[in-house]
Amino acid sequence: MSDWSSPVRYAEVDQQGVVFNSHYLLYCDEAMGAFCLARGLREFVERVRLATSTLTWRGPAHWGDTVEVDVRCTRLGRTSATLSFDIRASGRECCTVETVYVLADLAGGPVPIPDDVRAALTA
Amino acid sequence: MSDWSSPVRYAEVDQQGVVFNSHYLLYCDEAMGAFCLARGLREFVERVRLATSTLTWRGPAHWGDTVEVDVRCTRLGRTSATLSFDIRASGRECCTVETVYVLADLAGGPVPIPDDVRAALTA
Amino acid sequence: MSDWSSPVRYAEVDQQGVVFNSHYLLYCDEAMGAFCLARGLREFVERVRLATSTLTWRGPAHWGDTVEVDVRCTRLGRTSATLSFDIRASGRECCTVETVYVLADLAGGPVPIPDDVRAALTA
Amino acid sequence: MSDWSSPVRYAEVDQQGVVFNSHYLLYCDEAMGAFCLARGLREFVERVRLATSTLTWRGPAHWGDTVEVDVRCTRLGRTSATLSFDIRASGRECCTVETVYVLADLAGGPVPIPDDVRAALTA
Repeated sequence: MSDWSSPVRYAEVDQQGVVFNSHYLLYCDEAMGAFCLARGLREFVERVRLATSTLTWRGPAHWGDTVEVDVRCTRLGRTSATLSFDIRASGRECCTVETVYVLADLAGGPVPIPDDVRAALTA
Repeated sequence: MSDWSSPVRYAEVDQQGVVFNSHYLLYCDEAMGAFCLARGLREFVERVRLATSTLTWRGPAHWGDTVEVDVRCTRLGRTSATLSFDIRASGRECCTVETVYVLADLAGGPVPIPDDVRAALTA
Repeated sequence: MSDWSSPVRYAEVDQQGVVFNSHYLLYCDEAMGAFCLARGLREFVERVRLATSTLTWRGPAHWGDTVEVDVRCTRLGRTSATLSFDIRASGRECCTVETVYVLADLAGGPVPIPDDVRAALTA
Repeated sequence: MSDWSSPVRYAEVDQQGVVFNSHYLLYCDEAMGAFCLARGLREFVERVRLATSTLTWRGPAHWGDTVEVDVRCTRLGRTSATLSFDIRASGRECCTVETVYVLADLAGGPVPIPDDVRAALTA
């Protein structure tokens, strides 16, 4: 089972008949939330900020498709975590995304990721 | 000159080649903000909530069109104001919207619209 | 069971912490599609255009809520159908929407709604 | 003067009070269109597809900010062009994006970028 899935919404499809590119980041945001909440990491979700995100498109998604996203934590730094998103549309390879999140204090500065969060992210 | 205008964004157009219906409420929200800020009503913008909104579509807007919105205050109640939005796409009649806003206190309850706000809305 | 439901997406919530108003039309669009597809009315979905839509907001929806939409056909004209949408957020009353759809030919002109479609809409 | 600019829209800001991450790709899409149309490259806009996009966030954008985007072509391959986007919010550094576009034929296969297009992209 995937970490997050949703039917493509009609409003997400552009006049070329494919999901508009920016919506893939929205799918990843929802999948990241689901991935973390399933691991009890609600506070982590609310305290990270995005550093970088790289999207590679491999094929289109259309109205009628169901989007499925798998999430894995592929790298852990002292204050950052890299999540990889594998997005499929009705089973077809569609887009992969790699995003680096930095844990931040209230002033926005980076803080070390606690050990229990590290364990949960890579469980 | 209109109260607010913007080129149609590519992502706003659906696979039938027309601006998706929900975006008209977004245009009105921006136009309402511009209308009120131009009258010094920033606090009013931040303290109203939407009660009802009625949209009547009269023709499509396409990628390449510029959307223009004219705003008028067409009715003032004790705690509510009705704004009418006339939306054109590259000069063509496109959509009219009528929205009732209620001025609210921090708890969300309706409060009377002050006289200076009433004067500014209908100036 | 509702005709359509979805968790509120984080990107749908504005800086007041509530679902931004325009997204309710998007929810209705998805619910209308689900309602019609469940009745075998795919061609109807693809050939109607929106005439008018009236939204009445009754309470906010927040991140963490699940939005549920119930759809009923409340009026049938010769070329138009009125659908009513009852939107709840985690069970709380949230927004009601009434939308008039007109069945159109390829040139956009209104055409009579066939009897089998009328029967399916009100079944 | 920037290649594209727009006030931040209220609906683009999330409940943390900053522009939601996916909208930066939408800004780039508009800026890419403006950049190409200003160089007479409308057909190029309509025939490219996105291969990869890398976003690096450097600071937030808020409601009230005006977003400005500068576009440069930073690399030209045989069938691909890399555009770099420098996004500022009311003058502050905000996000940089690098996107690789591939020119495609109707079947979606890559085709060489013509010399006049190459010249226009790097002019």
